[in-house]
Amino acid sequence: MSTIVCDCVNIKRNLSMLTDFYQLTMGNGYLKKGMKDRIAYFDMFFRKIPDDGGYVIIAGLEQFIEYINTLSFTEEDISFLRERGIFSEDFLAYLREFKFQCDIWAIPEGTVVFPNEPIITVRGPIPQGQLIETMLLLTINHQSLIATKASRVVRASKGRNVLEFGSRRAQGYDGALLGARAAYIGGCFGTACTMVEELYGIPSLGTMAHSWIQSFHSEYEAFKAYAEVYPTSSVLLVDTYNTLKSGIPNAIRVAKEILEPEGNRLKGIRLDSGDIAYLSKAARKMLDEAGMEDCKITASNSLDEYLISDLLLQGAEIDIFGVGENLITSKSNPVFGGVYKLVAIENENKLESKIKLSENPEKVTNPGFKKLYRFYHKKTNKAIGDLLTLRDEVVDESKPYILFHPVHTWKKTVLTDYYVKELQVKIFDKGQCVYSCPSIQEIREYCKGQVETLWEESLRLKNPHKYYVDLSEELWTLKYDLINKYSNEESNP
Amino acid sequence: MSTIVCDCVNIKRNLSMLTDFYQLTMGNGYLKKGMKDRIAYFDMFFRKIPDDGGYVIIAGLEQFIEYINTLSFTEEDISFLRERGIFSEDFLAYLREFKFQCDIWAIPEGTVVFPNEPIITVRGPIPQGQLIETMLLLTINHQSLIATKASRVVRASKGRNVLEFGSRRAQGYDGALLGARAAYIGGCFGTACTMVEELYGIPSLGTMAHSWIQSFHSEYEAFKAYAEVYPTSSVLLVDTYNTLKSGIPNAIRVAKEILEPEGNRLKGIRLDSGDIAYLSKAARKMLDEAGMEDCKITASNSLDEYLISDLLLQGAEIDIFGVGENLITSKSNPVFGGVYKLVAIENENKLESKIKLSENPEKVTNPGFKKLYRFYHKKTNKAIGDLLTLRDEVVDESKPYILFHPVHTWKKTVLTDYYVKELQVKIFDKGQCVYSCPSIQEIREYCKGQVETLWEESLRLKNPHKYYVDLSEELWTLKYDLINKYSNEESNP
Repeated sequence: MSTIVCDCVNIKRNLSMLTDFYQLTMGNGYLKKGMKDRIAYFDMFFRKIPDDGGYVIIAGLEQFIEYINTLSFTEEDISFLRERGIFSEDFLAYLREFKFQCDIWAIPEGTVVFPNEPIITVRGPIPQGQLIETMLLLTINHQSLIATKASRVVRASKGRNVLEFGSRRAQGYDGALLGARAAYIGGCFGTACTMVEELYGIPSLGTMAHSWIQSFHSEYEAFKAYAEVYPTSSVLLVDTYNTLKSGIPNAIRVAKEILEPEGNRLKGIRLDSGDIAYLSKAARKMLDEAGMEDCKITASNSLDEYLISDLLLQGAEIDIFGVGENLITSKSNPVFGGVYKLVAIENENKLESKIKLSENPEKVTNPGFKKLYRFYHKKTNKAIGDLLTLRDEVVDESKPYILFHPVHTWKKTVLTDYYVKELQVKIFDKGQCVYSCPSIQEIREYCKGQVETLWEESLRLKNPHKYYVDLSEELWTLKYDLINKYSNEESNP
Repeated sequence: MSTIVCDCVNIKRNLSMLTDFYQLTMGNGYLKKGMKDRIAYFDMFFRKIPDDGGYVIIAGLEQFIEYINTLSFTEEDISFLRERGIFSEDFLAYLREFKFQCDIWAIPEGTVVFPNEPIITVRGPIPQGQLIETMLLLTINHQSLIATKASRVVRASKGRNVLEFGSRRAQGYDGALLGARAAYIGGCFGTACTMVEELYGIPSLGTMAHSWIQSFHSEYEAFKAYAEVYPTSSVLLVDTYNTLKSGIPNAIRVAKEILEPEGNRLKGIRLDSGDIAYLSKAARKMLDEAGMEDCKITASNSLDEYLISDLLLQGAEIDIFGVGENLITSKSNPVFGGVYKLVAIENENKLESKIKLSENPEKVTNPGFKKLYRFYHKKTNKAIGDLLTLRDEVVDESKPYILFHPVHTWKKTVLTDYYVKELQVKIFDKGQCVYSCPSIQEIREYCKGQVETLWEESLRLKNPHKYYVDLSEELWTLKYDLINKYSNEESNP
């Protein structure tokens, strides 16, 4: 196979072949069976919030759009597929001249979302809706996982800055690059990875590793050399030998001897091992006594939202948290279980809603072409709950609305003083992109605002309140009619 | 920023900027301090085996070599860095004309390795050895994690085929693609992802999703249509409605009505939900009674090595396991903690060994430029233990060798009837690649042989025997001399 080296960092890879092989065998089957133009509707949704948290931050839409915009098959792809010996020439020609024709609706990046909500809805020819499943899920699952984790870590840090540190332990290159992008959406203020800044305009930061210290004859010489090179931006790593006896005294000495005489200040120190709570308090005291109240303390070393909460409870004096592997892999819960399910088919222009049954009632899909509303309290602008309806239903804000629990239907809430917002926006119209992605900074700001629409009870790290996602009466009726129909019919089809 | 779309799937991305920002600030510092050509030695090693397993399968070397071979900085990269305002023009010119000059030794992909062993050793100008740290760790950590997990899953399957299924829940695109590559090295027989075959020549497989069934009027029609399109390769998904009452009877009916009259056989069925142990036994019985003993049963649904062991203990009748998110993210342990540490510096052509102390004695690094030997038992060809020595030490196979425990030094073993192999091979000589990567099939075969060199006791999924990795007397003496020196000196440097 020939290989090309692409020099440019700003590259959009063609990932059209990153699809499960069965998407292609099914596509070929649909063509053979005359179902090339059969219109199908698919919903992407998830069932469980990672880490048993109260909400998910959705992310990855921009990369999904890039994928759709570059969706095309090269002659090499076609030859490769032909060699498998199972695809018809009709199907290969279909791929060679592939023209994306679907409509797609999606919830914008940075939005808080909840289980069973259609994050992305695809309507179009069934072979196409099927083909894009793998990349859709891969892209949204990955970035939503990391954005959600980042949001947890950032909230645990209570206003302090969180820096994403994890490239070296990410799961692959995009794990590092797009993971850092998602972490920024979730609230991190920057990353240690240079390429992330070049690609996405997210600030990259960092100063020194232990090897810098070790490559000089002494810690003092290493600090001095660094301060001479970076008089206005030095952050010194103080734990190579002994944090309190050697690291911090040497940092103070360098500040006094090298930086302050020239009118500069030591920007910060970094703690990367030992008892961070104890060391940070002792370090703060030593720095303050040396008149270095403005010297910031950064802490790293396998941190996550729980360790950060604990450190702050213990009064740790930390200004910046560097969070590595536990964030970039979402170590405590490294899988985001988004799924993509067929919810309707058009038969002779008539919409036929579809359902996927399961022995587990919570796994039964919500059928049909739907709309997702969020109810907000007029006075507080806090989110009250979400409502799934059929596509043509309209919520009349001038009237009270009765929400009811989809399983325990006697649980009802009458809403007044509310307004609603529709959550999905159209991003592709008959294959054409009709959405302009916000800048990454705008997404991050929007995400911050989104988290603020939630009540404290939904924001708890542990045992958060479960946010309401209800069905309209029409949708509920459709769903239970279908359940009854299929559970009677299909056991003896 | 301008963007390019690359059509070709066989693309080597230039990932030179995928480096922690501090590698660049340190590099700039080394140049400023006249240390551009200071020769340093770095070791990559890990301290802990994922999942508390008995061994690690090392993987990712080919991609690391690709990275080194494409290591170069574009004008855009240079401009980007210049705008940061902290890099000297000398350093920017150094990057623009970057010429890799290091020697690198590495343990080949597919080898079983153990904690504290130098997987990769880099010798060269310190700014260069430093620059490559991030990509080295990212590449080796990721693929070794997945290859090791795959090896566990494959062993649990006791000779049955394991198919990697996880693209949609991987952490990013390379998480899917290179993860599937690593899973193949670890023993999987294929992947569900088409692009993995096109890129790496690893078989991709798959037949149908639930949506195929749902898009027809009945399950029977869906199976019939599929069998007509793929008369020789159909695997039917039988759990959409009711596995035993509907799915398997319909599969048998289609085999009898459509396939067998034309001389074809139903290749297989797939179970994706429910009680797999029970369903697989019932399915096997139904298929056998229909004269379909050759119809294979594939099982999927959040499997991992423990669930597979349990299923087989319960007598499940499964021929092929499809393993998704638990493999592609190594869910139970999603971080491989490889580190990269400075172990020596050349000062006026004299080697000065370096050590990184830690309050945790097991975290103290092994200093110096070293060699790694593996001792094999002559009669059984089983691996007995590994030995780290200084670089110039030679093990004389004609004499007995005394191994001793590096902490409890009174624990000794006298080896006779052994032979040794050196594990590292040279892959770069003064910046030039001198290694030819084996094919992925060769690596997989080699890996299989590697696992067979281990005793059953090291292969246990739970509580495996801890394999010996000892130090030679010379290296041990060097290490403890350095520990004594630094723990006295550096507390008051």
